[in-house]
Amino acid sequence: MEHLEGRLTVLAALEARQRRFEVILISHAAHLDKLQDLLQAAQMQQIPIRRVDPKELESLAHGTTHGGVMAVASPKPRTTPSQLLEIVDRLTEPPLLLLIEGIEDARNLGFVLRSAEALGAHAVLIKKHLWDFDPIELARPSSGAYERLPLVQIEDVDLLVKLQKKGVKIIGCIAGAKRSIYERNLARSVVLAIGGEKRGLSQAVREICDMFATVPIKPSPSSLSLSHAAAIVLGEANRQRQVSQRAEPSPSSVTLSEGK
Amino acid sequence: MEHLEGRLTVLAALEARQRRFEVILISHAAHLDKLQDLLQAAQMQQIPIRRVDPKELESLAHGTTHGGVMAVASPKPRTTPSQLLEIVDRLTEPPLLLLIEGIEDARNLGFVLRSAEALGAHAVLIKKHLWDFDPIELARPSSGAYERLPLVQIEDVDLLVKLQKKGVKIIGCIAGAKRSIYERNLARSVVLAIGGEKRGLSQAVREICDMFATVPIKPSPSSLSLSHAAAIVLGEANRQRQVSQRAEPSPSSVTLSEGK
Repeated sequence: MEHLEGRLTVLAALEARQRRFEVILISHAAHLDKLQDLLQAAQMQQIPIRRVDPKELESLAHGTTHGGVMAVASPKPRTTPSQLLEIVDRLTEPPLLLLIEGIEDARNLGFVLRSAEALGAHAVLIKKHLWDFDPIELARPSSGAYERLPLVQIEDVDLLVKLQKKGVKIIGCIAGAKRSIYERNLARSVVLAIGGEKRGLSQAVREICDMFATVPIKPSPSSLSLSHAAAIVLGEANRQRQVSQRAEPSPSSVTLSEGK
Repeated sequence: MEHLEGRLTVLAALEARQRRFEVILISHAAHLDKLQDLLQAAQMQQIPIRRVDPKELESLAHGTTHGGVMAVASPKPRTTPSQLLEIVDRLTEPPLLLLIEGIEDARNLGFVLRSAEALGAHAVLIKKHLWDFDPIELARPSSGAYERLPLVQIEDVDLLVKLQKKGVKIIGCIAGAKRSIYERNLARSVVLAIGGEKRGLSQAVREICDMFATVPIKPSPSSLSLSHAAAIVLGEANRQRQVSQRAEPSPSSVTLSEGK
């Protein structure tokens, strides 16, 4: 069982219906009028609510931003590779998937999930051995996206190969690539692969990439954090998809290149 | 006097030459071979270096990521409004300025500064009464950008009016604006104004905006954090500026609109 903390996270988890709830704890000090949506959702799903002393809740809480609301629930289930392939098959638009490597901070990953959801990503793929994050630290900055967005743990590139066979292109976002993200077609089926700030993308992922693209920035010493680079790349994919939906001939004003 | 912590921050401050250094403290446990660039810069500027016991440095340090390097220096001077106007006059390209309101977290502001520098912003404007951040908390995520990027504290909209008189357009980035950032010309002289997640842009800034633009995202409950929204808007400005440098007729594939 995991703890969930804060109105927004608990409500997002209730609405996503991915977890099994044991109980929701609400401090006697909490304002119930601000929790109506949460109470209603809990009632609909017949989840017991227990009012507790503020000190009891404090003693259970991990962080300080719970605002008097906690829940005890099963962990959010990971999406398996085969479930992801089913999701991809069911999509009515070209899949937009994000692969993140080398992220070291739960908070940064939370922000990545939040941006990914807002910018239309259908799922986020993360190397399994990197998955060692405190779920509460991850959930808070994700602003509910952690509950809603499919997350897939991968151990190797098998899933990427299967996606390629379905016509999904793997685009490695690396510094110094000849073409920029603005010169790549991100409106088609893609996995956008982004590596950590220290080591970038792993050799295994680089080898399987169909092509590479760079996020153009000013020269060193300036740099982007992983989560902000991801937001810019996903934002560009979102832009191209909007433009291409308007049935324009090309998803970008710049000539798009298909080669490596 | 302020403390600076960590090799990257101290080196960025030395290279930016904005602060007066009193002393640089280096732990006996630090590896000098990894600090050659820093030692050289300090020597060039005749700044005393003192080797200290790891415990002494630990007792002075605020955070835990100093890696055995600290400095005692004057605070980074703020850029005054009149200095900013001079900077704008000297630019050989259309100014790209960022105005941030309602940011509550030093770490988030640090990331905003890092993205702003990397994406070509010439300065960042922040409401003065919001300026109450721990400089060490701010400096670390900025990855040196805090030392290099001009930061202007504004108390009211006077500076914005003066910029408008120079032909700079104030574009308010707000949810629900009719036009998106992709339909606005961000390659010309602009202030991009972005508000906090809770209250958005203040009434005073909204009233002076020449036009508004929205960052298109998926419907609620999905959302973007302020620093990630800023990265996407600045990334789009950077894209348009690159395209327009290639002397194409329009900086975007979408028809740009000039009206409110």
